[in-house]
Amino acid sequence: MGRTDFTQMRCPVARAMAVLGERWAMLVLRECFYGTSRFDEFERNLGIAPNILSARLRDLAMHGLIEKLPAPGARHDYRLTEKGRDAFPVFLALKGWADRWMTGPEGPPVVLEERGTGAPVRSPPALSSTGAPLQPEDIRVLAGPGASEALRARFGALVDG
Amino acid sequence: MGRTDFTQMRCPVARAMAVLGERWAMLVLRECFYGTSRFDEFERNLGIAPNILSARLRDLAMHGLIEKLPAPGARHDYRLTEKGRDAFPVFLALKGWADRWMTGPEGPPVVLEERGTGAPVRSPPALSSTGAPLQPEDIRVLAGPGASEALRARFGALVDG
Repeated sequence: MGRTDFTQMRCPVARAMAVLGERWAMLVLRECFYGTSRFDEFERNLGIAPNILSARLRDLAMHGLIEKLPAPGARHDYRLTEKGRDAFPVFLALKGWADRWMTGPEGPPVVLEERGTGAPVRSPPALSSTGAPLQPEDIRVLAGPGASEALRARFGALVDG
Repeated sequence: MGRTDFTQMRCPVARAMAVLGERWAMLVLRECFYGTSRFDEFERNLGIAPNILSARLRDLAMHGLIEKLPAPGARHDYRLTEKGRDAFPVFLALKGWADRWMTGPEGPPVVLEERGTGAPVRSPPALSSTGAPLQPEDIRVLAGPGASEALRARFGALVDG
């Protein structure tokens, strides 16, 4: 069995992981969220080999998360698109989990605060429609408009998207 | 230059990506959030080769996101730990982004609703302390208690964790 091509999978989460799950992609996006836009800045801040960085920037541009724009001095800026900016909550949720579970006793290397108020940036919680914490047990999975026969058989009722 | 070992990187987000960014790990977690607990259920629902599934379950257990418990009939259940359950907002944020950007015209294959109310499950938004939408421009990055010299030089003031 060959290596599964996640970009061809029916599940959008699998397709998302084909992009965001790439080992360096989320760190390149992190740098974008932190204001980095130049190739040499990404290279220095990430400690990444230039050929790997080129490939990751190209992939993120191909998938429409960043765009490469001309900048003064025959250089380029890499800027987030709307699709890339919309991954900000994913990054914050991941950083929250990482700070809670993957940090040593010394604490997180970087903390985020709101520019306006100085309040710490919270990782986005899963909330119900009434504002209560939402747990995995609280959800029901239903076949959506793009469900296959197999998914409909598994999850029952077809629901309009 | 060899392949970077992300589990050894200082950045918690990089360490988190070493676990959650693995191509199949998030889909195995998705199945856990959807109630799957048996090896053969994971295998069928994911369409994954058994040797790959074994390796992914072992990795997730090694990193403390799931545990393998004895079940009736010489079988095992794979259950989320607290650390694994705490990745639920990350999954929901990822699914929200995936449904918005990685879904074909037919719509999402699966939709989630709240068991209690039937309301659609929202992907966790990034919100400020006042409840307003939080954009990447709204944050300030500060060196945290675990910052290296390089991070302190880059982000300035050391902040208590």
